[in-house]
This record gives sequence, C-alpha cells and structure tokens, in this order.
Amino acid sequence: MKFNWNYPTTVWVGENRIKDLTIACIDLGINRPLFITDKDLIHLKFIKEIISEVKKSFKELKFFSNFSGNPVGENVDEGVNEFKKNNCDGIIAIGGGSALDVGKAVAFMSCQDRPIWDFEDVGDYWKRANDKNIAPIIAIPTTAGTGSETGRASAIINKNTGIKKIIFHPKILPSIVILDPKLTIELSPRLTAATGMDALAHNLEAFCATNFHPMADGIALEGMKLIKSSLLVAFKDGGNIEARQNLLVASSMGSTAFQKGLGAIHSLSHPVNAQYNIHHGLSNAIFMPYVLTFNKASIEKKITSICDYLGLDKKFDTFLSWILELRKELAIPHKLSDVMDCSKINLDELSLMAYEDPSTDGNPRKIDKEDLKVMYEHSISGELFK
Amino acid sequence: MKFNWNYPTTVWVGENRIKDLTIACIDLGINRPLFITDKDLIHLKFIKEIISEVKKSFKELKFFSNFSGNPVGENVDEGVNEFKKNNCDGIIAIGGGSALDVGKAVAFMSCQDRPIWDFEDVGDYWKRANDKNIAPIIAIPTTAGTGSETGRASAIINKNTGIKKIIFHPKILPSIVILDPKLTIELSPRLTAATGMDALAHNLEAFCATNFHPMADGIALEGMKLIKSSLLVAFKDGGNIEARQNLLVASSMGSTAFQKGLGAIHSLSHPVNAQYNIHHGLSNAIFMPYVLTFNKASIEKKITSICDYLGLDKKFDTFLSWILELRKELAIPHKLSDVMDCSKINLDELSLMAYEDPSTDGNPRKIDKEDLKVMYEHSISGELFK
Repeated sequence: MKFNWNYPTTVWVGENRIKDLTIACIDLGINRPLFITDKDLIHLKFIKEIISEVKKSFKELKFFSNFSGNPVGENVDEGVNEFKKNNCDGIIAIGGGSALDVGKAVAFMSCQDRPIWDFEDVGDYWKRANDKNIAPIIAIPTTAGTGSETGRASAIINKNTGIKKIIFHPKILPSIVILDPKLTIELSPRLTAATGMDALAHNLEAFCATNFHPMADGIALEGMKLIKSSLLVAFKDGGNIEARQNLLVASSMGSTAFQKGLGAIHSLSHPVNAQYNIHHGLSNAIFMPYVLTFNKASIEKKITSICDYLGLDKKFDTFLSWILELRKELAIPHKLSDVMDCSKINLDELSLMAYEDPSTDGNPRKIDKEDLKVMYEHSISGELFK
Repeated sequence: MKFNWNYPTTVWVGENRIKDLTIACIDLGINRPLFITDKDLIHLKFIKEIISEVKKSFKELKFFSNFSGNPVGENVDEGVNEFKKNNCDGIIAIGGGSALDVGKAVAFMSCQDRPIWDFEDVGDYWKRANDKNIAPIIAIPTTAGTGSETGRASAIINKNTGIKKIIFHPKILPSIVILDPKLTIELSPRLTAATGMDALAHNLEAFCATNFHPMADGIALEGMKLIKSSLLVAFKDGGNIEARQNLLVASSMGSTAFQKGLGAIHSLSHPVNAQYNIHHGLSNAIFMPYVLTFNKASIEKKITSICDYLGLDKKFDTFLSWILELRKELAIPHKLSDVMDCSKINLDELSLMAYEDPSTDGNPRKIDKEDLKVMYEHSISGELFK
C-alpha cells in the first residue's frame, strides 16, 4: 500500500517506496544530487542496492559520509565543500538522525556566508539566512526515532564548547520524505528500542508541553498510540513490516508535534549526549519516568485523559507503569548509572547546561537549575519522585 | 496570547492577530495586494478598519468582491482580470469560504493558460498547471467552518452543469493564515451553528475515512474535542473569544485532516448545495446522523474508542445522542424536508451526483448510488437507520 501525505511536508509512505527515489529527484528538479549517508551504512547491502538504482539515473553520483554519530560543525563544512566542488543541486540524505541532520545542514549552509553557529535556534536568528538558494532535500530515515526528516532543525555539536546546538531554519524542512519500513527491518533490537523510546519521548513531551497547539496535541496522541501498539512488536520481530511502518510514522509525527515544545526529558538528555556520547534515545528512555513523576501534579489530568484511548486504565500510575514495564521489556536500564560512570560528573555544570537547553521552556512544571539537578540525582540513584 | 504554527502552513493565531496583516504582506514580498472579500462584508465596520489599516502601507489597494456565496467560474475569471489589470502580486483573501476559495482560485488562475475546469481534482490533473508564478495568498477566515484557509483546493461551481467542482493544486495552499477570533464574534448564532457543524463534519468524516493517515486521525480527534467544548458556548455567547478561537482552530484542523478522505455526509451535501443553494454546513449537519447510523457497523469500534477522550460514555449511541442533542440545541432542523421543498427532487439524479462526488471514496462503508438514494430518503422522512 502506498500513502502520500502533505503535511508537515510531502511524505511518501509504504513498503518499497524507496523505489520512488528517482521520481522524487525529478519532481524536485535535482540533476546532481549529493548522496549523504552514515559511514556505517554505506557498505550495507540495502544501501548499495539503493545507490546502484539511483546511479541508473544519475551517472555522476557524489557521496559524503565522513561524519560521526554525533556530527560536529566541521563535518558540515566538509559536506558543503563536497557539495560546492561537485556543483550539486540537491541532497539525498539517508540514514539515522545524524545523516539526516548533516544532509539538512549541508543543503542549508551551501548558500550561507555566515558560520553555522549564527543560525542557532534563538529568537529570529534564522532570519539572518540567505534563504533563496537552499538546495532541495530528500530525507529517508533508516531508524524510527529522531524524526529529523520532518523537522526544521539540525542538531550539530560545537566542538569548541562540547554543546549540541540546534540549527534552525524553516527551509531546512526536507521537500520530500520517504518512509519505507523495509529500510528499518535490519535495525537491531537494541537500536529499535532506543530510537523507539526517542520517538515516544518526542510525542509525550510535546503532548504535555505548555502551549496552545491542538494540532500538535492530536498528532502526539496518535503517535503515542502507534508506539504503544508497535514498539514491542518490532523489538521482538524486526521483520514485522506493519510495526516497522507504524514506528517510522510515529517518529515523523513526534518531530512534527514537538514544535509545540519539549520538556525536561530532553533538557536532561542533551548535555549527557554531548558530554558523554550516550545515545539520545537511550538517555530519553532512562529519564522518562523521573521526569513524569517530577511533573506529576502538572500533567496528571492530561495524562489521565488519554489513558482510555491508549487502552490503559484511567490513572496516572497506570500510564507510569506502562512506561516502566515497556522499558523493562525493551531491556533499557532504569538508571543513568547503569549506562555510564556517574561518580565523576559535575552535576552543577551539567544541570546548568540542562537548564539552558531550549527544551526547558516547554516543561509543564516550571523548573530551575536545582530541579534539574535533583532529577539527575534521582536518575542516578534510581528513585522515582513520590 | 499569540501562537505561530507551521503546519500545514504558517498559521498565526490569537486575538487581534489581524494587526499583523501588513507584516504578513512584507514577509511574502507582496507590494500590490488584491484585497478579496465577500460583497456582504466590504461595508462592515471591522472590514473597513482592516482596510484603512492596510491602506497605510499600500496606498493603491485594489479590491474585488463581485462574487456570490457559491462562487462560479466566471467570478474567478473576473477576479483574475482585476489582478492582471492592476499588476497585483499577491492576494489578501478575507471572509467566509467563498471569499477564500475565490482568492485562492484567482491567485492560481492568474498564471494559467488553460480553463479552470482542467484543474479539477482528478488524478494528476494538477500537474498540468504552470506552478512557477502562483501569487502568494494570505487567508483570513471570518467564519469557522470550511477551513478553506488550510486547504489546497477551491470549490467553484460550473454554471453550465450546475456542479460544484473541486479545483486542486498543492500551491493553492495559502502561505500565511491569520486566525483572529475577533473577526468572528459578530457571526450570527445561526451561521455559527451551521459553520461549526461543517467543521465537525470535516473532522468526523476524516477520522472515520478509510485510509492510513494517523496524523490526520490525531488532528481530527483533537478538532472534534475543540468543537465539543466550544460550539455551544459560541452559539450562546458570540463574544466568547476563547470559544471563537477554538472554533477557528478546529475549522482549520478539519480541512487539514480531510485530505485523508471524507464520506457520505459530503457526498450527499454537495449536490444539494449546488442545485438548491442550501448552506453547506447546514446540509452537513442535517445528513450527519443519517450517515453515522448508516455506517454504524463500519465505524462503531473507532467511534467508541474516542468517546472517553471526548468526555462521553463509551458507546456508539452516546456519541450519536451527543450529535442529535447538539443539533437540537443549535436549532438545526432534523430533516432535509425542513429546509427545502423535497417533493420535486429527482432523487435518482441527485444520488448519481452524490455517488460521483470525490468524497464517496472515503466513506468507511462501501456505498453505491442506491445507498445514497436511501440515505436521501431517510433524511427526508427523518428516520435514522437502525
């Protein structure tokens, strides 16, 4: 079955939709694409097949994959050089969040005069950009988590400060997104779990965020429902196409919804990802119940209102138990101290970084640096808030 | 409070957001706007105030309002002539569904060589269009029903056939939508009811439509929730800004959601609107319970799943009773025969038109011409399906 959707951008969904990649290039007038993918992927069979298919239409296909899992500014610079050197006119970005973020950032930076950090997601910095010649982007996720394919931002680490910065521009939104579940079936159970929990964190925090955005609320609720029905299925049976498709869609929905706002799960995660290279989805999964219980008084009514639709008893604690049980079945550790050595962390420094994270604003309970420190402490000791 | 959203297009929401209209023109590079509004509106105080404000920035503001409540192709032609004659470079469309549909169609047709009927929403007819120079559109609804502001189509009647045609192109989607509840507070209770039920019909049919589109499902569910909380409030107290805002948002959400599909409510309505000039929202409201009961077996599970979230007992009949009670409190008649003389209707002809309506495909129960005829008959006699 094929599905074509039109918001937040053009989304082509369905098994084997990757076969429409050449049509996507033609629709966008791309003649000299730069093919950007993670270096771990480029030698895999399914990527090689895609490349050989695309090469039938574009003989001089150029590649860029020299970047790390948590890409830094220099990676983007190098990609821009490749893009310019080869007179490329569009981006095919295929991979996990890193490849999509690099692809989007390369398309954007290929026509800017200022350094990338001038476009951090602060106020209307994005209006500084030259937005006339941003190359069209086709985004094809091979994981179902970040939802970078439907987002208007790239997360890039500034090596000088060690901080992950959100680079924002409305036209970083890919022009065509292809969601093909076939491309995710080889994802390991471990990565399926971590990325799936990332998508859940996006939908959950967007739903709970303070702001008036009913479209985002609806998308986030439906996103959670898809994850509830499909994450464990795909974890246990990676080849289940329906579950894989649901997770890809839920992931795209999470990042669509979270322009409403995020919250403390993401505030706590970003510094840990940038400083200690912990997988973003994994840290989101770990922090989730601590943040939920910390926020309880502010979100109880909202959470209870969706329980029945999600097939749960109408109690906050039932929702919490679902999350705890899900984490356990996905083999996700309960404590931050289970995944890293926490003895030498400077919690004051980390809490300040968390507090300054743009996600903090959306948290439904007003929080300060101390609150975030207490949440870090609980996530290390493993004790939920009462 | 101000809210800026980014899907399905740029949406600026909030009381007095109309004051940002000049900024919207500047953002879109519009220097010579054509101001399109219903002829009933152009002499109203609030429209005059908007015009005098816009004139401060655009001294040579041009107007077009020579069209009827159910606009015909010739109205669009005349608008295009005005647009070209005055070298306009953008459209400000403000009013009900008709003004927005005319505004969108004028922007689109201003750069086409083919007649408007060549762009009916059939297959990929839209690819016939020259899409390079479609003028930017700012859409500002003064009713909360059609949601034309977030739609990629215009409903225009072909006078030769008497049939309302859906003219479709992705770039008919307005570039900026302003949802200002202040502009809707003078809407009469009667029109508040009919347009509100139109928005409900969009969300309800989109939610029930057969198709895989979870984003649309979520938006439609949240849209119904807003209507449930606010339609009666606005009907009884037109000046309630919060309720008015919720309805405007629910209306934009309905038309966003219904690209998933509609159903028999709309199939039955369109011929009645075009042939007998019955208000589209009113006929949707009338047909709603007949179609719901006709479809019951196909939608019961889905409807029951949302009852709790909508604050209703988890039964199909509770949902149906809510619709029936709501119609009654909004003083909407129960039968088609309450609003028009049905004695001379050629039901076979009407049912064929209903069957050929593009909405028919989305109906959750597969239907043929005879089914639609039976639904017309029930809506005339007033008997719901068992």
